[in-house]
Amino acid sequence: MFGRNYNSALLEDAVDQFASLPGVGRKTALRLALHMLGQPEENVHRFADAFLKLKSQIHYCPDCNMISDDGICPICSDSRRNRSVVCVVESLRDVFSIENTGQYNGLYHILGGIISPMDGIGPADLPIRELTERIAGGEIKEVVLALSTGMEGETTSFYIYKQLSGLPVTVTTIARGVGFGDDLEYTDELTLGRSIQNRQIFKP
Amino acid sequence: MFGRNYNSALLEDAVDQFASLPGVGRKTALRLALHMLGQPEENVHRFADAFLKLKSQIHYCPDCNMISDDGICPICSDSRRNRSVVCVVESLRDVFSIENTGQYNGLYHILGGIISPMDGIGPADLPIRELTERIAGGEIKEVVLALSTGMEGETTSFYIYKQLSGLPVTVTTIARGVGFGDDLEYTDELTLGRSIQNRQIFKP
Repeated sequence: MFGRNYNSALLEDAVDQFASLPGVGRKTALRLALHMLGQPEENVHRFADAFLKLKSQIHYCPDCNMISDDGICPICSDSRRNRSVVCVVESLRDVFSIENTGQYNGLYHILGGIISPMDGIGPADLPIRELTERIAGGEIKEVVLALSTGMEGETTSFYIYKQLSGLPVTVTTIARGVGFGDDLEYTDELTLGRSIQNRQIFKP
Repeated sequence: MFGRNYNSALLEDAVDQFASLPGVGRKTALRLALHMLGQPEENVHRFADAFLKLKSQIHYCPDCNMISDDGICPICSDSRRNRSVVCVVESLRDVFSIENTGQYNGLYHILGGIISPMDGIGPADLPIRELTERIAGGEIKEVVLALSTGMEGETTSFYIYKQLSGLPVTVTTIARGVGFGDDLEYTDELTLGRSIQNRQIFKP
């Protein structure tokens, strides 16, 4: 295995930093650090500048918490989007995933996390009041919950559902079931069971 | 698939930079960029500093071309190493790999590349004259060639071998054969053929 002795404190430090990235082990970190060492100085600076700028100059949309280069984000300010539907997601990555399907034309509300007592995240730490305030604006008719199905995701969905009860919006959730192309044989029992319970009229 | 539309030029730039690393695709690059975004400012600066410093402050050992925080590298300056053997490798990573075996106690000579007409790298671009100069010092008795077995590696090995002929050193090369734990069935024919040709006295 690759030990920590690289004969250079500078290299060791760079490897440590790369290894702190998610999904990057020490062997890959060493490869990345040596790659950097082999790059022209300007490329190394361009790499550093990119995420230093990202960190220092990024804004968050005051409406949906989406990242934005300044002010209201491009989705919230896009007049072609359906402003009567808001999809509640945990993170920015979920937005990108949904946007990539090309099947959703509404707005988003990014929580930035889910209720997790283990991590000390309670309902008050999430922008749920901001969601009810957006709804109070009157334009929103449907809230689509698209959170994960783990216990924490379910808890968060239920909490939001309760907060929205009494407000003039329909609360929906994304369909769960056997994935397209998945074998029934290899689908977990919970998913398969739910997909039978929630069976739909066959439309050929 | 993840497109290029992240609603933010800053994020796009950071993703581009991460995706320029070897073995990092755009999906992983996005994950890494968002990870950076979620880190405290000081961590982001520490990450950038680590490889900016690596790039700007690293030295190369004047004897073996190993990286070094300053001057002669820790291997060349280690009096416990066997100064009569020099192992010729392509890159720093090869040194780390060999060091990790704990089976070599000599010195190294890092070429920083191999002869590759396709990439415009000729013998004159490699520190081979420096190797003969080291040998002229008189201390070195054996040169171990540990280059890759591709055509370029073989060409480089042969070139060095020719350059060293006439000098008072033994030229050796690392053993090639079926790896420990490898099945003969799945070993390529060249390797298996050579391992039969180069069979050794069985020492139980």
